[in-house]
Amino acid sequence: MQPVLDYLKQNQARFLAEFCDYLRFPSVSAQPQHKEDVAACANWLVAHCRQIGLEAKLCETAGHPIVVAKTPASAALRRGEPASVIARGGEPASTKRPAGQPAKSGQPHFMVYGHYDVQPPEPLELWQSPPFEPRITGRTLYARGSTDNKGQNFAHLKAVEAYLKTGTPLPCDLTFVIEGEEEVGSQSLGDFLKQNRRELQCEAVVISDTGIPSLKHPALTYSLRGIMALEITLHGPARDLHSGIFGGAVENPAMALARLLAGVRNEKGHIIIAGFYDGVAPLSKFERQQAARYPLSDAQLKKLLGAPKLFGEHGFTATEQRTARPTFEINGLTSGYQGEGSKTIVPAWARAKVTCRLVPNQDPAHLRKCVLAHLKKFCPPTVRLEISVGHGAEAYHVSPTGPLVQASLRALKQAFGAEPILMREGGSIPIVNEFKKILGADSLLLGLGLPDDNAHSPNEKFHLDCFEKGQRMSALLWQELAR
Amino acid sequence: MQPVLDYLKQNQARFLAEFCDYLRFPSVSAQPQHKEDVAACANWLVAHCRQIGLEAKLCETAGHPIVVAKTPASAALRRGEPASVIARGGEPASTKRPAGQPAKSGQPHFMVYGHYDVQPPEPLELWQSPPFEPRITGRTLYARGSTDNKGQNFAHLKAVEAYLKTGTPLPCDLTFVIEGEEEVGSQSLGDFLKQNRRELQCEAVVISDTGIPSLKHPALTYSLRGIMALEITLHGPARDLHSGIFGGAVENPAMALARLLAGVRNEKGHIIIAGFYDGVAPLSKFERQQAARYPLSDAQLKKLLGAPKLFGEHGFTATEQRTARPTFEINGLTSGYQGEGSKTIVPAWARAKVTCRLVPNQDPAHLRKCVLAHLKKFCPPTVRLEISVGHGAEAYHVSPTGPLVQASLRALKQAFGAEPILMREGGSIPIVNEFKKILGADSLLLGLGLPDDNAHSPNEKFHLDCFEKGQRMSALLWQELAR
Repeated sequence: MQPVLDYLKQNQARFLAEFCDYLRFPSVSAQPQHKEDVAACANWLVAHCRQIGLEAKLCETAGHPIVVAKTPASAALRRGEPASVIARGGEPASTKRPAGQPAKSGQPHFMVYGHYDVQPPEPLELWQSPPFEPRITGRTLYARGSTDNKGQNFAHLKAVEAYLKTGTPLPCDLTFVIEGEEEVGSQSLGDFLKQNRRELQCEAVVISDTGIPSLKHPALTYSLRGIMALEITLHGPARDLHSGIFGGAVENPAMALARLLAGVRNEKGHIIIAGFYDGVAPLSKFERQQAARYPLSDAQLKKLLGAPKLFGEHGFTATEQRTARPTFEINGLTSGYQGEGSKTIVPAWARAKVTCRLVPNQDPAHLRKCVLAHLKKFCPPTVRLEISVGHGAEAYHVSPTGPLVQASLRALKQAFGAEPILMREGGSIPIVNEFKKILGADSLLLGLGLPDDNAHSPNEKFHLDCFEKGQRMSALLWQELAR
Repeated sequence: MQPVLDYLKQNQARFLAEFCDYLRFPSVSAQPQHKEDVAACANWLVAHCRQIGLEAKLCETAGHPIVVAKTPASAALRRGEPASVIARGGEPASTKRPAGQPAKSGQPHFMVYGHYDVQPPEPLELWQSPPFEPRITGRTLYARGSTDNKGQNFAHLKAVEAYLKTGTPLPCDLTFVIEGEEEVGSQSLGDFLKQNRRELQCEAVVISDTGIPSLKHPALTYSLRGIMALEITLHGPARDLHSGIFGGAVENPAMALARLLAGVRNEKGHIIIAGFYDGVAPLSKFERQQAARYPLSDAQLKKLLGAPKLFGEHGFTATEQRTARPTFEINGLTSGYQGEGSKTIVPAWARAKVTCRLVPNQDPAHLRKCVLAHLKKFCPPTVRLEISVGHGAEAYHVSPTGPLVQASLRALKQAFGAEPILMREGGSIPIVNEFKKILGADSLLLGLGLPDDNAHSPNEKFHLDCFEKGQRMSALLWQELAR
């Protein structure tokens, strides 16, 4: 391993120059005027992968192309060990591999997932330097896409380059899947996974697209929350009514909505919808200990959010509340007159947009059923309830004590020189569920972003220590995962 | 009186032609392009008043002019009786008249208020004939301004014409004040009243600008509700937050608002704000009997409003709920994301626009204090409460058993040939409070509009029976009021 780590150390200046080349492509997947830039970025990436020794190709899709790059057969270390030494769930992974899987070397196969597309840079006037002209200040590099996600996937590419260019045998086969539609919903990825199921069959998917609390707190995210969206509309009178002429003798749909929503939660922050917590596994002592290690005090969180006072479900810490507990969140309210001054009406209808966050073991369909039953039960007969059901996704969870996660933690610890944290995150990453459903593979979320990296915001940045430590982590990871 | 009534009968065809002339002016006060039309209408009205024998003048204001027309001294019947035989509150009105009051004849003086401006006619495509080309079908006349308010004030003018042209002595002095800014908030009227306080001092103001349930149910409106407006904003986090990353550990302002609003009313429809009903006089048996005579069943009201089911404060009929009870009405809700689909945020703030309707004896300032105290008491510390206070106006009430009202009922009964109804209306007519405050005069609301007259809507209409019976009512009214 030493030649690999030395190679990484010695080539940082060149890596940085190449990283800047990668960042100069305005690969904004959401904006049609950047279609050519997205394609150019993909082509550059294929060429770069080939240059560092990978077998790379561009896979066209209905949207933006996907870059696929594999370690060549020659990169494999033939150790004569049985394939897939790391078993999942106590069952050797090799027994799960279908007959047709093209395991070149008998070594375990891992996928590295990333995306080369970026968020739109607007509003441009808030950037301190042009978003696609990388600017380095101290150890910070500013550019759109620097942390999300070019810097993070490029760190993995540089690690594999170090193996290939030093002739160090890789203890596993790797396939990089770097897509161009992550910022617009990964529309083409599902079909791509289905069409290439056999070729992509793997032990796990390594993804660096999440965050760490600080450079002193490297982290692996072992759980994500799911989601269940719905829109509640209460219809009252056939049209907005004069509140003077009719107000008092007819239900006000906005008031009915307020009462219906208020009845969902008690003063302790518990959701009192029957069945809402069905399936929610209690947090283990180990998990609560891990949550407590997250370096953000309540005072710091309050300051970060700018809220008058924190509030959450009683009996849980703020970290637990926002990552390990289900929520019923109102995302928007609409009713009646919203302009300047006042308009004296009883509005004809009132609407709330709601999303629930789900935790592992909760079934979105069951939760939806419980929420709908509650709303139907408590909606008064004075208004007509209309529910529009939105998307739903299960939470994600990989055992924090399983061998893949433990191997990742060892790599993180060596790379960052600090004890890593096992984290849950409160958001959802839909593709992780796709990897599980289509490929049967768990995801190892080994993010490299810092909390103030301004992903999706002006002045997006990436810390060069994250870049460098990320490369080391990646290099060490393959050893640990294959051990 | 017979010559007056005969004159009215004999001149309907000419009256109708003149009414159409009046309606042809597009006197839309809200639209600057119609400024000249508004002025032309005012000038026509002055000329018409002079033609029928009134002493008329145009009073310029900062906005549109006010037409003032008085009965000439010669029209007065000098009966040698003491002035102002009709006392209010048991006290002879004459004792209230300041020394400088220009009572020409020693007769009681009444004001007739109306407005010659009209609502904008838009949307034009919904009119079945051009809004300013009067169209008569059967006994219905279609035109913008026909019911609101040209037809109603013209009926009063035709009645006084009948007195003047037949040489029938009028038992009271009359001053017509017909303004041109009612549809845009009567901005200039307050100053006009203040500047002409002495000249306008009167026993009461007669206003025909409200409605009657049907031609078989003539009505006097003896009470109007007041209003108190406010805007409640709850501020949570400093900005919209990612509901995945932070949701669960921070109060959702939309939920806090729902809970705060829901806590204002109980399941019986009572407002449970301490002090909310302070001062509300219980409805007398007489008033409840009168309310019960209002010819609109719950089934008819439900159909009219298109609501799934009626709802109001328990213990009161729908008519009482919407005219004689105070309300806390949400006019609008705004929070977070309101567009298509979903946006997974904890909104930074949530807002409700609220108007309370007040009934007689309630003090808007006291009510505001009670509502604010309630909101402050129950607003959780997890959000910051911001209240923006809007306009407030007292309710209006004239004793339904007082002599002025009883006199008006006699005139209504004779004119319509049906037993009149004593009505409360749920809306507010701000000028009525101005007349009370500035002139100390009660208003007699003797509306001539039917519920389906489409005031403020396309295809506004006026029933010619309302026009004709309105003239008779006006002619008889002066006899009854002066009796």
